[in-house]
Amino acid sequence: MEYDDAQRVISEAAVSSFDGSESDRYRTVMQALVKHLHGFAEEVQLTQAEWMAGIEFLTRAGQVSGPRRQEMVLLSDILGLSMLTVAINEPKDPKVTASTVFGPFFVENSPMVGRDGDLAQGAPGEPCFVSGTVSGSEGSPIAGARVEVWGADEDGLYDVQYDSTRIANRGHQYTDVAGTFRFWTVMPVPYPIPTDGPTGELLRAARRTPMRPAHLHFMITAPGYEDLITHIFVDGDPHLGSDAVFGVRPSLIGDYEFNPSGTAPDGSVREKGWFELKFDFVLGEEVDEVG
Amino acid sequence: MEYDDAQRVISEAAVSSFDGSESDRYRTVMQALVKHLHGFAEEVQLTQAEWMAGIEFLTRAGQVSGPRRQEMVLLSDILGLSMLTVAINEPKDPKVTASTVFGPFFVENSPMVGRDGDLAQGAPGEPCFVSGTVSGSEGSPIAGARVEVWGADEDGLYDVQYDSTRIANRGHQYTDVAGTFRFWTVMPVPYPIPTDGPTGELLRAARRTPMRPAHLHFMITAPGYEDLITHIFVDGDPHLGSDAVFGVRPSLIGDYEFNPSGTAPDGSVREKGWFELKFDFVLGEEVDEVG
Repeated sequence: MEYDDAQRVISEAAVSSFDGSESDRYRTVMQALVKHLHGFAEEVQLTQAEWMAGIEFLTRAGQVSGPRRQEMVLLSDILGLSMLTVAINEPKDPKVTASTVFGPFFVENSPMVGRDGDLAQGAPGEPCFVSGTVSGSEGSPIAGARVEVWGADEDGLYDVQYDSTRIANRGHQYTDVAGTFRFWTVMPVPYPIPTDGPTGELLRAARRTPMRPAHLHFMITAPGYEDLITHIFVDGDPHLGSDAVFGVRPSLIGDYEFNPSGTAPDGSVREKGWFELKFDFVLGEEVDEVG
Repeated sequence: MEYDDAQRVISEAAVSSFDGSESDRYRTVMQALVKHLHGFAEEVQLTQAEWMAGIEFLTRAGQVSGPRRQEMVLLSDILGLSMLTVAINEPKDPKVTASTVFGPFFVENSPMVGRDGDLAQGAPGEPCFVSGTVSGSEGSPIAGARVEVWGADEDGLYDVQYDSTRIANRGHQYTDVAGTFRFWTVMPVPYPIPTDGPTGELLRAARRTPMRPAHLHFMITAPGYEDLITHIFVDGDPHLGSDAVFGVRPSLIGDYEFNPSGTAPDGSVREKGWFELKFDFVLGEEVDEVG
């Protein structure tokens, strides 16, 4: 077993090379990373060709990334690492609304949309009225919470995926004194994540679907509370059990109710149908960092 | 423990998403990769900031890579993954010369150098005469084996690291009927791996040396035998115990003997000193792939 011994010697040397790291945390993280990376290679008896395929895959994932695309995040997403990291770091209070993946389509400085305003701004899709409350885990409403919303249009595309600088179907609103918000958007539809890069090759080799179930993105922030980054998924979506990025949590499936015609909650009279989503969010109280 | 349960659900879903992979091997490799990746994140309780730092690090490693630089290989090297993969895949016969990392400085179509010829071709450094034999593990010499050699000059640089297309200190020779080779090169010196990219940041954060102990690269190939990719290190080098890429094997440390003046093995009379390395290589017999 001389050569198995050689492998052990190499792995131990790689782990201990981080003994003198500049911080305890750096040492802890890197030594665990090396141990698991080597454990993976040992477990599958990684071949040279597989090692090279991995090197080339990661290199290309970096090279196709840029200001409008982050393939390495997408890779992390489809391996479940992004969602696992979200779950590890979310508040542990079961009363607090669950978190899910941030995704690559958030944009800073979205427009503010007034009460009952429409953040679609021309994005094609069925109208959807969204309302609800933001409160703390102790139950009291949070006034002035920033409710940031973004979503895909009926073609499954976000504004940033078009060849234009148009801003559509994204915006923010502040909750009123009762902690409530109300706005129009368009009804989300399921869509595929981008499959024209290395991540797409991986999904095809694994015979996995690139589809994500329909959802609206929410980021809710308020002083004294933990930021909440989440989606509200559409109940009934056929992809709820096979989200390409493992983002679905049962508590985040919302009832998007169809109304064929009539008077909408904002008082507008609708000849065509609209959807309505009511969802109440609960934020965790901010915990002071120790140390 | 509802939230630990959520983490388990995510990890199990990510693993089982590869159940339908196009091949058994793809499923095996990817499921092990996901398990170890998630095991790492769980073990260190990876923070969102650390996850993002890792994403950005890998993205930049891909982006600085190109025809003349492969940062992802360098990263694999300093994590010991390259060397571990070498050890996993080398022949398990202890009579066969040990393998080590390929490194990023091999170039195809090197010049042929005749018996007692000089492959330095103007590369600066102390002259070094290298001779030895190539044989099979049963002991018989291998005639016509291709002995490919490359090395750094006295400044620790390979020809491809200069801004020119000059080819220097690399070449190949075929063994004679007795399985022997003999050529001149320059004495190798220790040198740092490139530290101006993400890999350099990692080494600094870990307070690790970028130095590699002095070595000559050999790639020896012959029909019917396994390719041998290895180095011969210089005995006495102060970096033998801290190779940045974990490539040192005790059996690959060679005695580079200094001769102050006189007649060299090729009959040339030398006014200045030269080094001499004798090393005999043993190749493993090629094994037919099963299946």
